[in-house]
Amino acid sequence: MIPHTSLNLSGERFNVIYKFRGDEATARGKARGICFEQTIEFPADLVGDDDIRGQIFGRVESFRPLDDIHFEATVSYAAESSGFELTQLLNVILGNSSIKPGIRVQRLELSERLLAAFKGPRFGRDGLRERLGVKERPLLATALKPMGLSPESLADYAYQFALGGIDIIKDDHGLANQSFSPFKERVELCAAAVARANAETGFNSIYMPNLTAPADQIMDKARFAKQAGAGGLMIAPGLAGFDGMRRLADDDNIALPILTHPAFQGSFVTSPDNGISHYTLFGQMARLAGADGTIFPNYGGRFSFSRDECGEIVEGTAVSMHNLKPIFPVPGGGMYLDSIADMSAFYGQDVIYLIGGGLHRGDGLAETCRRFRQLIA
Amino acid sequence: MIPHTSLNLSGERFNVIYKFRGDEATARGKARGICFEQTIEFPADLVGDDDIRGQIFGRVESFRPLDDIHFEATVSYAAESSGFELTQLLNVILGNSSIKPGIRVQRLELSERLLAAFKGPRFGRDGLRERLGVKERPLLATALKPMGLSPESLADYAYQFALGGIDIIKDDHGLANQSFSPFKERVELCAAAVARANAETGFNSIYMPNLTAPADQIMDKARFAKQAGAGGLMIAPGLAGFDGMRRLADDDNIALPILTHPAFQGSFVTSPDNGISHYTLFGQMARLAGADGTIFPNYGGRFSFSRDECGEIVEGTAVSMHNLKPIFPVPGGGMYLDSIADMSAFYGQDVIYLIGGGLHRGDGLAETCRRFRQLIA
Repeated sequence: MIPHTSLNLSGERFNVIYKFRGDEATARGKARGICFEQTIEFPADLVGDDDIRGQIFGRVESFRPLDDIHFEATVSYAAESSGFELTQLLNVILGNSSIKPGIRVQRLELSERLLAAFKGPRFGRDGLRERLGVKERPLLATALKPMGLSPESLADYAYQFALGGIDIIKDDHGLANQSFSPFKERVELCAAAVARANAETGFNSIYMPNLTAPADQIMDKARFAKQAGAGGLMIAPGLAGFDGMRRLADDDNIALPILTHPAFQGSFVTSPDNGISHYTLFGQMARLAGADGTIFPNYGGRFSFSRDECGEIVEGTAVSMHNLKPIFPVPGGGMYLDSIADMSAFYGQDVIYLIGGGLHRGDGLAETCRRFRQLIA
Repeated sequence: MIPHTSLNLSGERFNVIYKFRGDEATARGKARGICFEQTIEFPADLVGDDDIRGQIFGRVESFRPLDDIHFEATVSYAAESSGFELTQLLNVILGNSSIKPGIRVQRLELSERLLAAFKGPRFGRDGLRERLGVKERPLLATALKPMGLSPESLADYAYQFALGGIDIIKDDHGLANQSFSPFKERVELCAAAVARANAETGFNSIYMPNLTAPADQIMDKARFAKQAGAGGLMIAPGLAGFDGMRRLADDDNIALPILTHPAFQGSFVTSPDNGISHYTLFGQMARLAGADGTIFPNYGGRFSFSRDECGEIVEGTAVSMHNLKPIFPVPGGGMYLDSIADMSAFYGQDVIYLIGGGLHRGDGLAETCRRFRQLIA
């Protein structure tokens, strides 16, 4: 037996709603198992009747069938088991259980005290609208690409996009710090190009470089980008870590809007019975880590997300999470101007439309962007 | 059309071997698609006959059936597209394609010039053996747990494990910086306890704290741990980012052996047609990011890895990767002393056995550890 342990805990707990695949007995076993796997990872019979058993063990709070082979359980954990850190919170939510097939995180219900440890999105929907001076209409975004173009050519595109009234002009996530497009040179030229266009148009377009970079360079690059006039930052937490994004978002000296990019995160969602739901990964977790907008592949493009899955993400961007602001869904990926009518019915006003390669077909970039903007208005 | 672009690239390319699910036409389409998705993410017909087309585009180098519904393709990319950074290299390997079902990374074949940009494991198998003074036998490891115990109780366990001759005594990955077990207090007490036991036994046991922590705390905590006498560090790249681990491993002032923990990484492997192979994720990528040993769930325990998948990981720890040293496979998870005979036949000598909760059953910890060590010798 381990030493009898008294803990001075608050009693506050947070809930994770899991979906299990299997017959009822299997699913109940998985629900019970997760109470140990995500906490003590230790033989329960070696723990006496103490606060580790009473508080640290996960608790199955409810259990119900979804269909013949899927069951849903709410499991609660002591708020203190998270250490009030994002890395350890994610670890309690799914750490080792990510390795077990047939377990999927459906939703998080995080308590007020736990969420108070996270700043979450600095701007959120309202803050980003205010910064961009756009009251009601959807926001427009595009990506600078393809990989291989010089900083000068990318900056020329940025200028034309801004002339055409695109609100957010971001690096493609494949633009890093390659020899053919060094980060600093690109950021300076693109930020200046957007500023030049704004001076002509009176718009408030912003340039958002890709901050997905080596761990020891992210903060320096962010400071450089801000200094150079970048109006926001994009980062892929699948590559840089969710907490790498959280750190960037929390820094009061940087204080720029953040878009999260889904690169390298897809494996969490591609198998419907494993991993994490679209709702939680691209909605709730993105907000926990401080994103102001969450990029994801739109239904009907070259990716496989369904309308329902995209709808889930939209819900996750706005569901009440105490102090964490609602953020923008940013559907993109193989979108074209003629998708807008259908998307408008689906997403409504609180959305950022991300159109990349599609803008390059037509009568000149700036002109195509103006049509994009007219379509929205 | 985009501007005609001349690039001054080396011509050196690296290969990613992908498995695709689908009929042959579908698989060929996926292979071709990945050449754009992972690089230009842009309509190919808008790129002229220039170096972007000739160099930056991915190239299908070979294509073959594996069975009726699985095909394998080797796709090559320009070394420079990686920017010689781990974050961008991982992005080129699987970034957006992680979001498409039916694509799995099977193996990496990285060129010498690309690998020269990565230090990889500082110690590797030989270096860790030398540091621990263990020439030929398998190494022994255990985890301090359960979550909820005080630093004093954990340190007492660490002392007994070290007395019993366990080589590596690591924090459970659920020990972070919680109120009931603050990081600094735990690290000081556990490192001191292991040193005290070493002084009695003459062994070289080391204590490895869990460095999975907020992005802005990892390096400071590592320095603290080294100062306090920790003999190695464990980190979960699924939570802290692969590059968070790479940064830790590369730091010449810290210079301690690193174990990588699989928490939150499971979704890459649990679906056999998506994500990343066991071989690449736990073998090749762990080495790229500087791990000296890679923890994974052993076959036959409470996780689902098969013998074949564990065998793949062992291969990935030792396959030639130019300057990157071979590292230790560290099977763990629901192992007991009576698993050792079978594991010994399977893993041979170059392995670290990780037994956690199983050591707590029997006639006192130190005595059980001695039996563990006798079983190995």
